[in-house]
Amino acid sequence: MNRKSHNMEKTLTELSRLFGDRLSTNKTVRGHHSGDESWHQKQLPDAVCFVNSADEVSRAMEICSKNKTPVVPFGAGTGLEGGTVAHRGGVCIDISNMSSIIKVNAEDMDCIVPPGVTRKQLNRFLRERGLFFPVDPGADASLGGMAATRASGTNAVRYGTMRENVLSLKVVMANGSIVTTGHRARKSAAGYDLTHLFIGSEGTLGIIVELTLRLHGRPEAISAARICFDDIDGAVNTAIQTIQCGVPIARVELLDAAQMSAINRYSRTSYAEKITLFLEFHGSSTSVREQAETVGEICTSHGGSGFEWTAYEEQRNAMWAARHSAAYAAMAVKPAAKAYATDVCVPISNLAKCIRETQEDVDNSTHVTTFLLGHIGDGNFHYVFLVDPDNPAELEQVLQLSERMVQRAIRMGGTCTGEHGIGLGKQKYLQLEYGTAGLELMRTLKLAMDPHNLMNPGKLVPLGTRLIHI
Amino acid sequence: MNRKSHNMEKTLTELSRLFGDRLSTNKTVRGHHSGDESWHQKQLPDAVCFVNSADEVSRAMEICSKNKTPVVPFGAGTGLEGGTVAHRGGVCIDISNMSSIIKVNAEDMDCIVPPGVTRKQLNRFLRERGLFFPVDPGADASLGGMAATRASGTNAVRYGTMRENVLSLKVVMANGSIVTTGHRARKSAAGYDLTHLFIGSEGTLGIIVELTLRLHGRPEAISAARICFDDIDGAVNTAIQTIQCGVPIARVELLDAAQMSAINRYSRTSYAEKITLFLEFHGSSTSVREQAETVGEICTSHGGSGFEWTAYEEQRNAMWAARHSAAYAAMAVKPAAKAYATDVCVPISNLAKCIRETQEDVDNSTHVTTFLLGHIGDGNFHYVFLVDPDNPAELEQVLQLSERMVQRAIRMGGTCTGEHGIGLGKQKYLQLEYGTAGLELMRTLKLAMDPHNLMNPGKLVPLGTRLIHI
Repeated sequence: MNRKSHNMEKTLTELSRLFGDRLSTNKTVRGHHSGDESWHQKQLPDAVCFVNSADEVSRAMEICSKNKTPVVPFGAGTGLEGGTVAHRGGVCIDISNMSSIIKVNAEDMDCIVPPGVTRKQLNRFLRERGLFFPVDPGADASLGGMAATRASGTNAVRYGTMRENVLSLKVVMANGSIVTTGHRARKSAAGYDLTHLFIGSEGTLGIIVELTLRLHGRPEAISAARICFDDIDGAVNTAIQTIQCGVPIARVELLDAAQMSAINRYSRTSYAEKITLFLEFHGSSTSVREQAETVGEICTSHGGSGFEWTAYEEQRNAMWAARHSAAYAAMAVKPAAKAYATDVCVPISNLAKCIRETQEDVDNSTHVTTFLLGHIGDGNFHYVFLVDPDNPAELEQVLQLSERMVQRAIRMGGTCTGEHGIGLGKQKYLQLEYGTAGLELMRTLKLAMDPHNLMNPGKLVPLGTRLIHI
Repeated sequence: MNRKSHNMEKTLTELSRLFGDRLSTNKTVRGHHSGDESWHQKQLPDAVCFVNSADEVSRAMEICSKNKTPVVPFGAGTGLEGGTVAHRGGVCIDISNMSSIIKVNAEDMDCIVPPGVTRKQLNRFLRERGLFFPVDPGADASLGGMAATRASGTNAVRYGTMRENVLSLKVVMANGSIVTTGHRARKSAAGYDLTHLFIGSEGTLGIIVELTLRLHGRPEAISAARICFDDIDGAVNTAIQTIQCGVPIARVELLDAAQMSAINRYSRTSYAEKITLFLEFHGSSTSVREQAETVGEICTSHGGSGFEWTAYEEQRNAMWAARHSAAYAAMAVKPAAKAYATDVCVPISNLAKCIRETQEDVDNSTHVTTFLLGHIGDGNFHYVFLVDPDNPAELEQVLQLSERMVQRAIRMGGTCTGEHGIGLGKQKYLQLEYGTAGLELMRTLKLAMDPHNLMNPGKLVPLGTRLIHI
């Protein structure tokens, strides 16, 4: 590993001339940039470059491009599919220093941020301006990383995912040029949709160096509710009917008994340890009350019990903090284990069936500890498995369960990943999901935009026989 | 024009073997497929092929591809930027027979349709199912054409444009293969966003042969309102404040006095002939009343007068029918003239300024008849100019006005087209809007996906020196 190629030596020399001590080959630093929060095996980059500006990313990319050095962009490192693993070594471009919010346009309800700003940082900044950014994956991810993985979260049922909340991007291409994909206008019919081409491209087509984001007004009133069910069907049918009735519900989250129990232990709460829905309503105070009443009735008609409603901010915040810590709560159940998170999404009419069949499969095939949680307004759910890292048979069993879960979801008209991305873990499912022609088109795009396969190589799109060796 | 190339002869022979009398070289038929509703000069295709299925489009494309014959997809022919002009001859693929709705999934609120279904046809079909499809350009366009041009309309401020309302597409590629870009799941983080790659691509990357669309529940209650203003600023500031207050307004349409007068004559209405907003509210009956009250107060505080509110369906329908006929009403003012429709979109904070400067420019530079209408919740507005077709100086003047309008909009952070598309008319603005690197990326995509430039050649992306002659 110490014998670097001639090209890599050249890259490091040239980068270090430009970045000084912001280019690091220190093993600890490289170790911090070798993976993400997932079970995927970590792999060290050859160096880490701490960039401060779009222009610096462009210049770094020019150097790497000239020397055919792979590049891996790195934000907060909170990914779940190995997207930041330095799979083929190369230079890790750490954008976390690019974190000064550039501009908030309150009248237009948009803002311009560099990619290292995290979602919580942005929302703290927006709070006193009466605005908020809704996309909220569990972790405090960087907004660049969230756009790169098409991230989502609990608010997507009402406010959409990164797909709906990015107006424009600035992206550094493989050759170092900087593309601006759009502008601040709310809509446009001008040419190919370059913005969406990069959202979800996981750093394999370019490095996101600036984002223009859509913001939302903080609702006049917010209330939350919690309700228990004896079975999954009741909870899912509640979500379906709520949406069909046109209730503009802001959040509708499913948690199973195991997850509720883990939460109680981790967050020191004392919720009933049953299948539970966490709900949130946004609107005027009249409308919030009306929504909660309507949904309360729907819950009851589907066997829900113990509907607890609150307009108190403190109780509400405690509930959502507990929900956002759900994955960490699950992991805390067996600290020595690794968490393996699945992430399928199906049409909501197939959701209860998909969860039921998955639960049967889980019950029949493994003794590992599992937790279920889902953004069920979107048809998206996760089984989190706790795997003993010293037990390869257990990991194998979980991988097989996960594979059957993906096949089941795709068979039901869904996707192998609702919000975590493809990364290293799900490449083999792209063909199943999009067919040969769809996968071939993805390869065509990748090779047209990154002909030497330098941008986060080995991630997202399996290049197969079309791989260009570097 | 009668001397067809050897390759074209081969294409026609092979297509006619496959399609029989559904391949037409009749001049009248070709004439009907030589343009759209715009001022762009019509040009005849060599033949028109009436296809019945995705498979037929694929086979037609295989033949055209083999013989390097250009292909122009054609839906309802209601475009406004020359997108269906057979600019380089070739075969026009008429998809209007592909018009049997395939499936409505009421529980998931989505549907699957072939591209020839029109928006009105779909909404008639959905009506009794309690659902609707919101995207509503003025004309009764085909849904395939609407996706191809990233169409929009009056509901976009609340429900989004085609960008937000297409879940998945089936597309025939240049080589005849059929790509499925997605599925019915509400969200996905699986791979490149192929769906958005085709939305707005105007037939230059592939031919849309099937759409999976997002539907919405018909609101429990709908009400509409109309209010007059003395100046544009009052109307625009009303829209800004309405959105900032979180009122989920469904429609907020601006019309100037000339447009109102044209409407009164064309639709036999008797509205006040002043700057006017047409508004619509969707929700529960309580919420609709609350929204209307809030907006009524906002209107008044910005100098609005004569706020007229109605919950009666008949009055509401009459008002929106008048609005949807606005362009035709404008044209009826001078039946011998041609309508030239502009279509810029800016951040809403710059909207009043952009309209004001444009109005000054219009006042100073031309005597042609103009009408202003706008989807001002999105920052999108149109000046419609009535041009004497026998007066080239007048057209030139209007072209210059339009050019300055585009430059102004882009300078203000906007786009040269909010919803009409690029087609033949706006190619020269792509570089101004996206810069050299952005335009270069569009060219890269086009040439990677259609290396022989057969898919609607000469539209959307100017290939310049990279043009491959066929």
